[in-house]
Amino acid sequence: MKKPKAIKTPPTKEELANRLENVKELMEKEGLDFFVCFDPVNIYYLTNFAFYVHERPFILIIDNERLLKMVAPLLEAAHIRDRAVAELELIEYNEFPAPEGKNWYHKYQKILANNAKIGIEPSMPMEIFQKTPGKKIVSEILEEVRLIKSEYEIGRLVHASKIVSRGHKKILQLCKPDAAEFALYQEATSAMTSKIIMDIPNANFKATETTAAVWPPSISHEPHLVPNIFAKMEEGGPHVSIVQARVDGYGAEVERTFFLNSVPDKARKPFEIIMNARNLAYELLKSGMMMSEIDKKVKSLLNKNGYGDYILHRTGHGFGVTSHEAPYLAEGYDRILEPNMVVSIEPGIYIPGIGGFRHSDTVLITEDEYIKLTKAPEALEELTLKRN
Amino acid sequence: MKKPKAIKTPPTKEELANRLENVKELMEKEGLDFFVCFDPVNIYYLTNFAFYVHERPFILIIDNERLLKMVAPLLEAAHIRDRAVAELELIEYNEFPAPEGKNWYHKYQKILANNAKIGIEPSMPMEIFQKTPGKKIVSEILEEVRLIKSEYEIGRLVHASKIVSRGHKKILQLCKPDAAEFALYQEATSAMTSKIIMDIPNANFKATETTAAVWPPSISHEPHLVPNIFAKMEEGGPHVSIVQARVDGYGAEVERTFFLNSVPDKARKPFEIIMNARNLAYELLKSGMMMSEIDKKVKSLLNKNGYGDYILHRTGHGFGVTSHEAPYLAEGYDRILEPNMVVSIEPGIYIPGIGGFRHSDTVLITEDEYIKLTKAPEALEELTLKRN
Repeated sequence: MKKPKAIKTPPTKEELANRLENVKELMEKEGLDFFVCFDPVNIYYLTNFAFYVHERPFILIIDNERLLKMVAPLLEAAHIRDRAVAELELIEYNEFPAPEGKNWYHKYQKILANNAKIGIEPSMPMEIFQKTPGKKIVSEILEEVRLIKSEYEIGRLVHASKIVSRGHKKILQLCKPDAAEFALYQEATSAMTSKIIMDIPNANFKATETTAAVWPPSISHEPHLVPNIFAKMEEGGPHVSIVQARVDGYGAEVERTFFLNSVPDKARKPFEIIMNARNLAYELLKSGMMMSEIDKKVKSLLNKNGYGDYILHRTGHGFGVTSHEAPYLAEGYDRILEPNMVVSIEPGIYIPGIGGFRHSDTVLITEDEYIKLTKAPEALEELTLKRN
Repeated sequence: MKKPKAIKTPPTKEELANRLENVKELMEKEGLDFFVCFDPVNIYYLTNFAFYVHERPFILIIDNERLLKMVAPLLEAAHIRDRAVAELELIEYNEFPAPEGKNWYHKYQKILANNAKIGIEPSMPMEIFQKTPGKKIVSEILEEVRLIKSEYEIGRLVHASKIVSRGHKKILQLCKPDAAEFALYQEATSAMTSKIIMDIPNANFKATETTAAVWPPSISHEPHLVPNIFAKMEEGGPHVSIVQARVDGYGAEVERTFFLNSVPDKARKPFEIIMNARNLAYELLKSGMMMSEIDKKVKSLLNKNGYGDYILHRTGHGFGVTSHEAPYLAEGYDRILEPNMVVSIEPGIYIPGIGGFRHSDTVLITEDEYIKLTKAPEALEELTLKRN
């Protein structure tokens, strides 16, 4: 199968109606009368409206007639009407803190029936929970529906993947010994941002972020220690890059292990082994496979080669309206891979005194294969950059 | 009183111990055995460690011996040790999703006693709540302690205010008819970012963000409709600017209503009235005043002048480790202003066909007066920029 075409346009009303349809189906199955969303990401998924949470709550409700209602601050009404694509009834309230009787929860509680079964998100905060009437049932319906991507979402993820591939290309072009972290960050994120606004002039910057960083060899064994902005690139390697973006609401990432001018001898074996682990992950990456099993087998290969102590994370995670979400290719995540899931493949090892080793790509699962959506060199030779 | 000096260094262990001391005092008062923080902002406040929430929870616990413990993913351990300043015991867990028996909540539950009174945040998500044993009591202790700023925090807020004032100066310097939104954003945020990394070379970019925007007159009556990045500045006005930042963990904002070349006649009266409302707010801005009363009186002035229908938000909000938090100068927020609170003063009116009118400053409340920490022109004359 060929890589699907990139899509750069906002979702249609039909696309959002289909997402809602999938949620409604699961609501039937779980016997829920209402479903309440508070998580901005879920609200974005269902409406195309993005916002930050301050003291004024935005709450999206699928009511017992299966219609969308949004309880939102008065001052955001124009913003919601501008961006929301879904059919929804807007119920505005006076700003919180508000005079007695005019607060958000008075309007919120009016929508929900007292004896109803109310589905709520695992992330629902206590202060919303406490104001929610009815029999509340924590439910992962939204997480569930978001696992499988529509044709439209795949098109957006293809586009997001192109953007991060472009940012990554910039990093490999410019990286040299003594280059400053901050300069690489600036160049790569600018390259992504200008392409985003070229492709999507009306991109929603509340749903857009770009990030790029390189861990030079002296710290690449610590993948979660964010490099200092004045960190400098070094001779040799392994350097480990991260380029990630949420592009007008859709996420992707690409990461590489690379070397400047030369490859230290002690780095050759771990590079080879992590490539074997990665190849194994791709061999196993088939619709129908148990995701926990893929992770287990990849880790077992690393273990057998003596690198078990240097594993810090799982083999992969999902993408969608964020660049980091379910599903997880992880021990304990006993779930089958399905067509139209999009995941990262990124086994990694982190060896003090040698460095970190990890490639990551954004990958689409199809009926009978997979398609890498991101593009960057993969082999040691191509990733040994000559910079003299 | 003179404006306090800017502080650019990380907090000391003592500073963080004092914050914890304040929390412990309130725990005693409320009879709490434990307190659990999940909100990254509260965790930052107590530890100086900043992070994003993904599927791997970070949980900070003040235990029944009043010691800090943090349950955190194994792969973040080095990152926490690098940034956290507070004395804390790190309890690492294998990544979620993890094999049975090795999950985060096994370690979390071990710390908490089953019959204890556990204080939890209003924002605690259901999935953490459900794993929390004991008698859980929603408590705003952290919000409470964060209301009153220490000398150190004030120094950081003075610094953050300087940064946003610099960004705002850039906007007023460069703004002209036909200037593109995106160019102003780039120039102002770059000016702030370069100053931040100059002042704080090791600034934590997980706790740093800068933003800048101008609403040209055709949309300035819609304060929450984010301008399109290709929006253009216009002759006349009112333009409304926003410059906001979180500078290595401490927030501030400055906003102005301004005009390019000329002031339309219809804009003069609303500008004058909003300045009167603003002056009234500052007159009332005294330690000991009820915050809801200030808002009520300001709104009453706007009402009397016939602008009641154009009010969309309250008079002010607080700053601290974020640029938008409690306290609120708002009807319904019946609380006394106290020395060492830091708030915005920003009454606003938004008139379709004319535009938006709002200045905002970051303001420190002292024993017997207030000190504006941000700096920008205020009068109509200075804010009518000649650009021919």
